[in-house]
Amino acid sequence: MPQTPHIERHFTGTETVRDIVIGMSDGLTVPFALAAGLSGAVDTTRIIVTAGLAEIAAGSIAMGLGGYLAAKSDAEHYHAERCREETEVTEKPEAEAAEVADVLTTYGMTADETTPVVEAMRTRPVAWVDFMMRFELGLEKPDPKRALLSAMTIAGAYIGGGFIPLGPYIFLPKASTALVASVAITLLALAVFGYVKGHFTGAPPVRSAIQTVLIGGVAAGAAFLIARAIS
Amino acid sequence: MPQTPHIERHFTGTETVRDIVIGMSDGLTVPFALAAGLSGAVDTTRIIVTAGLAEIAAGSIAMGLGGYLAAKSDAEHYHAERCREETEVTEKPEAEAAEVADVLTTYGMTADETTPVVEAMRTRPVAWVDFMMRFELGLEKPDPKRALLSAMTIAGAYIGGGFIPLGPYIFLPKASTALVASVAITLLALAVFGYVKGHFTGAPPVRSAIQTVLIGGVAAGAAFLIARAIS
Repeated sequence: MPQTPHIERHFTGTETVRDIVIGMSDGLTVPFALAAGLSGAVDTTRIIVTAGLAEIAAGSIAMGLGGYLAAKSDAEHYHAERCREETEVTEKPEAEAAEVADVLTTYGMTADETTPVVEAMRTRPVAWVDFMMRFELGLEKPDPKRALLSAMTIAGAYIGGGFIPLGPYIFLPKASTALVASVAITLLALAVFGYVKGHFTGAPPVRSAIQTVLIGGVAAGAAFLIARAIS
Repeated sequence: MPQTPHIERHFTGTETVRDIVIGMSDGLTVPFALAAGLSGAVDTTRIIVTAGLAEIAAGSIAMGLGGYLAAKSDAEHYHAERCREETEVTEKPEAEAAEVADVLTTYGMTADETTPVVEAMRTRPVAWVDFMMRFELGLEKPDPKRALLSAMTIAGAYIGGGFIPLGPYIFLPKASTALVASVAITLLALAVFGYVKGHFTGAPPVRSAIQTVLIGGVAAGAAFLIARAIS
């Protein structure tokens, strides 16, 4: 029963969680790795905080504004494809009826068995277009209110995540001390975030925690080694 | 005819283009904005190059490794859901038959009209599971070979994109001169990239170019203002 209001609410909840996961994954990881990398090249934290805040601004805007414009484009793409399907259902009903039969025969139905479905579609043009959008083109109707909310959620999660690794550099003057504190706090935060993320996405939480820590650790380690090598 | 080999090849091509778009969008934007931001705070380019390379390493690893592990998780999620559907089709065929009818009645078919489809599914358990995976759960079978290729494509595109804004800082010693060159080169690269991206995604190319330049420009402007304000 995928179309009931209850399930629709469930999907909306999942989309917000997904947006937070998208924003916070990168927000915890990239500013963390950048700050750790710069700690391998400079002694004082002032330049690291400047770079970290510039990165948080750049990353949250790139992800948030980029996501907003992508969602707007998706909505326009859906609308354009829907108009095309509506025209085709009206002007070339025989070709569209054959496409319904084609979709169903890929699931092992014979041409005879598809006939009642095709006839049912012919009497209900709106449902027919719905069917073609989902089953022929694989497109889901976008929620017009999601784009802005999604963009703000992703950007906010990126900023919230980014201040966790940056915090020690803001409060401690020496880069090497701040690095140790940042690594400890951020790896803990990545583990907790990965565990909670696994709970929401259905992945085994402990493995999700290990994977999330691994991504952050590898990214920060690589950034540190590169920055130290060139400085 | 959505299941023909020709269309399958077309989809694979589109996925590679999508991976390049994902990696290059962020690779052109975030290192550009970070370097521009730091230009508002420091005079020499050495620290900007160090930060930029650390960011490119961190961003490409976070996106590539993150994407790889996410694709692996998606594949496992699909496999687990498919096993569950296979069990349900075998052990609770009446409940699953009712779900097929439910899916079709949301497209305006009457209960009587759904009977031949339900009966056709009963005789073909594999096609029935395929139908439930796609039409009830909305899950597409992931390509197991995509995960690694997708990760490397995204990371490579991020690195390739990131060196465009960073190039002037590598070759010019003065931050303010390099900033002007970086802004000119990167806004041009963003416009070309946005135009080509629009060609592939079906969006109007000129508007895609304007949007891409806008995201990069706003992110870089915000990073510049923040870095200058705190330094």
